[in-house]
Amino acid sequence: MRRHGSHMIGTAHTTSRIEALTDGVFAIVMTLLVLEIRVPANDGEGLSAGLAHLGSHFLAYFISFLQLGIYWTGHRSQYEFIRRENHRLRWITIVFLAIVALVPFSTQMLSSYLRDPLALGLYAANLIAVGIVLAWHWLYAVNAGLVDEDLHEGVVSTGLRRCLTAPALYVVGYAVSFVSPLAGVLIFFVVPLFYLFPKLIDRLWAVRPLNPA
Amino acid sequence: MRRHGSHMIGTAHTTSRIEALTDGVFAIVMTLLVLEIRVPANDGEGLSAGLAHLGSHFLAYFISFLQLGIYWTGHRSQYEFIRRENHRLRWITIVFLAIVALVPFSTQMLSSYLRDPLALGLYAANLIAVGIVLAWHWLYAVNAGLVDEDLHEGVVSTGLRRCLTAPALYVVGYAVSFVSPLAGVLIFFVVPLFYLFPKLIDRLWAVRPLNPA
Amino acid sequence: MRRHGSHMIGTAHTTSRIEALTDGVFAIVMTLLVLEIRVPANDGEGLSAGLAHLGSHFLAYFISFLQLGIYWTGHRSQYEFIRRENHRLRWITIVFLAIVALVPFSTQMLSSYLRDPLALGLYAANLIAVGIVLAWHWLYAVNAGLVDEDLHEGVVSTGLRRCLTAPALYVVGYAVSFVSPLAGVLIFFVVPLFYLFPKLIDRLWAVRPLNPA
Amino acid sequence: MRRHGSHMIGTAHTTSRIEALTDGVFAIVMTLLVLEIRVPANDGEGLSAGLAHLGSHFLAYFISFLQLGIYWTGHRSQYEFIRRENHRLRWITIVFLAIVALVPFSTQMLSSYLRDPLALGLYAANLIAVGIVLAWHWLYAVNAGLVDEDLHEGVVSTGLRRCLTAPALYVVGYAVSFVSPLAGVLIFFVVPLFYLFPKLIDRLWAVRPLNPA
Repeated sequence: MRRHGSHMIGTAHTTSRIEALTDGVFAIVMTLLVLEIRVPANDGEGLSAGLAHLGSHFLAYFISFLQLGIYWTGHRSQYEFIRRENHRLRWITIVFLAIVALVPFSTQMLSSYLRDPLALGLYAANLIAVGIVLAWHWLYAVNAGLVDEDLHEGVVSTGLRRCLTAPALYVVGYAVSFVSPLAGVLIFFVVPLFYLFPKLIDRLWAVRPLNPA
Repeated sequence: MRRHGSHMIGTAHTTSRIEALTDGVFAIVMTLLVLEIRVPANDGEGLSAGLAHLGSHFLAYFISFLQLGIYWTGHRSQYEFIRRENHRLRWITIVFLAIVALVPFSTQMLSSYLRDPLALGLYAANLIAVGIVLAWHWLYAVNAGLVDEDLHEGVVSTGLRRCLTAPALYVVGYAVSFVSPLAGVLIFFVVPLFYLFPKLIDRLWAVRPLNPA
Repeated sequence: MRRHGSHMIGTAHTTSRIEALTDGVFAIVMTLLVLEIRVPANDGEGLSAGLAHLGSHFLAYFISFLQLGIYWTGHRSQYEFIRRENHRLRWITIVFLAIVALVPFSTQMLSSYLRDPLALGLYAANLIAVGIVLAWHWLYAVNAGLVDEDLHEGVVSTGLRRCLTAPALYVVGYAVSFVSPLAGVLIFFVVPLFYLFPKLIDRLWAVRPLNPA
Repeated sequence: MRRHGSHMIGTAHTTSRIEALTDGVFAIVMTLLVLEIRVPANDGEGLSAGLAHLGSHFLAYFISFLQLGIYWTGHRSQYEFIRRENHRLRWITIVFLAIVALVPFSTQMLSSYLRDPLALGLYAANLIAVGIVLAWHWLYAVNAGLVDEDLHEGVVSTGLRRCLTAPALYVVGYAVSFVSPLAGVLIFFVVPLFYLFPKLIDRLWAVRPLNPA
């Protein structure tokens, strides 16, 4: 009879269910992206002609899948260090997932209105919001003491830079799209490369190497 | 050869699979909500005009996502204390999930018939039923001895209040909607705030603080 | 360098991923059931008139959700005793899931053709096939030595009876539907009750109590 | 304060979340396959006539489900030996899943254009790409030292053969389809049999038994 009612929300616990819900939502969102690509109706025009119309949809599919990959690995990386969850962290996660779950919608909007700057702008806004909430999630976890006790300061700032590099590049891509729509979309394609080779990110921020050894 | 046939249903076991099924259903239900928002057809009217028609759908999307967040965190909180599952608890979970899985339907109904009191009534009824079954789930687990042995009485009643506060507020929201539909829907938006700042709930029930220290 | 190539398929391992895939498929299948219930178009006829047409769809939704509940808890119960998996058990699981994943299709078929005996027959055939493969899964696991070593004989036969009671009742329901379609569908509704109160199953099979203590 | 920023991406960690995301995507992709089979509209023509038109869809459903089964068990088998993950392995997984998630699309395309060699060719290309990325995933994990330290050479080559046998047979099936479309599709049906009875694969590659004991 030692446990206490306030424990129900006040204390911190293992993070397995936040991670399970997040993995579930990402798996579904990634997979739903493909549902937006409709097989062309078999109306005698032939398959190859029908597929030609789907080019922008496939483009948007791969772009979005990779951006979701950035944020999934980002979330995964944070939980290398987050040891406990609490009530507030769960709610930040729910807000995070509510914005992630909009990605199939904004992807379909982008592929349907590829030349409309509003479509690219809203698509960028969606991805930027995901990154900002992920940064908030990280800062909250660090400040609320839910991470490893002996966490190096460099981990905190590296984690933050990782969350915010992609949003910063999306802003650039959106701005460039006013000059050249094609170049703007191309930048969205390039963003995941920074995450595949994360040393590019560190160079982008001009930090000296964290691990001089 | 000591184990016995009646073990198959009579005894209690770890709760990992009830939790996995629940996380899976919540992840899918949350994500399916967005499928109801259809990208406006690119028929020359322009994207911004098309999006303007979707306002009620986005409203309903965020409201429902947050209500599901309330119940997911509620379920998560109960399993801080539930240590074992049994056959009956699994079936209560299945009934719980069958009602949770109806939320995308009633959300879409609400956003299509936003001015019809029947739509708001059925939407409220769906969410109220989720809360009541979650309360039943909690009481059953406590009474069947599936929780921590030294569980404080305050945890039991706090858990119950948490399950039932949202349903009570939905009843209020539905009643208010007969006076002002807008105010009624607004109350649905306010409910998650009580859960983001759960001390509001305790104040609502006028309980003295459980943890005077 | 002691491990060996044949290990890759020959030996048995922890069952966490079979369970994860199964939970995932069940969560999705259960949730997809509701997608078949379309919100009536807001064409001025009014919501209540539109909902009246959906009666058979809601009926089919709840029936199928509960049958899936039977088989999910059945699978869950088997893994109380199954300790290891092997290559063959994974493939039996995949066949099992391929048939489970057809349930949304046959449910929608049933609700669209409620008076066609062929629809009820195919729906029953789908559920019967799920039960038979689950029984095969159980017998294979027992015979291949993937279960607890000291497993009581009564557990094996109880497990088998649990898998096969539902299929047997579906056959009865289908047969009765030729006399009275309503009574036939009603039997499908009654089947889950046997699983909610599993002592009814033992009584059905006229076994003497396994645990006389 | 000993942990270091470079830890965030440089070191290797437990593989539970890669496995969870993969299981989630496979569960959803497998289940989405059935969504492509539409229940025939109840327009008075009768259910049996309507179902007759769905033959190719059911055929494609079962073929794709089993191919996904091959790759899911293949991924599962690799994680018998993979002990740690790193940043790059996560990204290979994301590319892998992006191609897996296209399978429902190419399946629906195949069932809609069953006699078009382009459809079968693209379907084969999709499955071949899955196999090749899975082989890349395996080789990377082995070469990056993410597997058991004492891994037998035979495990590495067996794992590779398993990944590449299915793609090789798909090439054969596609080639045969130019002579006889029916025989080509039949080969796709036969591929999973090699995986159900994996000794057939070893015989196919004419290797001497790895485990002479």
